Amino acid sequence: MFTITDLDRIVAERAGITDGSSYTAALISRGIDKCAEKLGEEAVETVIAAVNGDDKAFIGESADLVYHLLVALHCRGLSLDDVASELEKRTVQTGLEEKASRRGDE
Amino acid sequence: MFTITDLDRIVAERAGITDGSSYTAALISRGIDKCAEKLGEEAVETVIAAVNGDDKAFIGESADLVYHLLVALHCRGLSLDDVASELEKRTVQTGLEEKASRRGDE
Amino acid sequence: MFTITDLDRIVAERAGITDGSSYTAALISRGIDKCAEKLGEEAVETVIAAVNGDDKAFIGESADLVYHLLVALHCRGLSLDDVASELEKRTVQTGLEEKASRRGDE
Amino acid sequence: MFTITDLDRIVAERAGITDGSSYTAALISRGIDKCAEKLGEEAVETVIAAVNGDDKAFIGESADLVYHLLVALHCRGLSLDDVASELEKRTVQTGLEEKASRRGDE
Repeated sequence: MFTITDLDRIVAERAGITDGSSYTAALISRGIDKCAEKLGEEAVETVIAAVNGDDKAFIGESADLVYHLLVALHCRGLSLDDVASELEKRTVQTGLEEKASRRGDE
Repeated sequence: MFTITDLDRIVAERAGITDGSSYTAALISRGIDKCAEKLGEEAVETVIAAVNGDDKAFIGESADLVYHLLVALHCRGLSLDDVASELEKRTVQTGLEEKASRRGDE
Repeated sequence: MFTITDLDRIVAERAGITDGSSYTAALISRGIDKCAEKLGEEAVETVIAAVNGDDKAFIGESADLVYHLLVALHCRGLSLDDVASELEKRTVQTGLEEKASRRGDE
Repeated sequence: MFTITDLDRIVAERAGITDGSSYTAALISRGIDKCAEKLGEEAVETVIAAVNGDDKAFIGESADLVYHLLVALHCRGLSLDDVASELEKRTVQTGLEEKASRRGDE
């Protein structure tokens, strides 16, 4: 089954395409400000779809959001692996520890 | 290696914890508006970290963003699989088709 | 001197233009979701310009943000007066009260 | 009647309070990244309230958004006057010109 990890590999490949045929490469070449702007815009659309209870739109906008997050990461020379490692560190806690450590966030 | 798919499974498990010990379950119980708000806030912090070129913060905020996206999806009875399926549909294109189909987005 | 209150009056006037010549009227006719999406996107651009220390861009994006906030308010039959009244209520406090009442926000 | 221009003057005054009694001064002292983060968060809450059709919440969140925009501007040594001047430049157009010049935005 296709996973976000597969997409991350594809984004990495497309980032290296220099013949002008790739939207991914074009976006990365515009720099981190533009990539971050797109990421933020997709987040806004994801929030709106979620709040509206429109699940089809929510899934579609979430897909756009994940894609643009990966593009922004690669624009900075990072990848989904870096984010997964960070999530692993945070997740090897019990539910109870989780609650205590995150409470400050709320 | 730990993946976002593993995290999605953990979020699904924690969503079902009813003894008050889970931050994940507590957030989901507050409803989609609250979950979407947290998602939007994490996106703002991710954008700021990305633009600042602070890679450590960018990775940390991206981890928060992914986690809160998964929580919001589960709040609506959805999961990362739904998003991955959508991404698969969009990704089985050549770079050239990708460029043409996405251009309207910009 | 031109004020945001003047702009609010102009937005109200343009909202009523039905001959297709007004961007303001066209945006309002697309509904609150579209108006809110534009508002959110302008906020993202304002945040990026602010963080980058680019004052010219920050002023320009703030102008876009204020304009799109006014459009969204008028889309819901509201106006800047409603927001100003709310701000007046919150502002007739001393600095000390202000601090105490807002601390929970942080 | 109380206006946003009045609030801008109050924010400017509070920005100069150094005895620790002002939330406004405290937020400004944390720097533009923090001010921009708060601005972005309030924008997310404004978008959610707008989309939900909750006018009371929409007005309240808009008030928070305007306040935090003013704080961010003052954090950079700017003020509402700078934004109003920019808006004046953009607004001395007919509806027709408005439409043509803004179309690229959409």
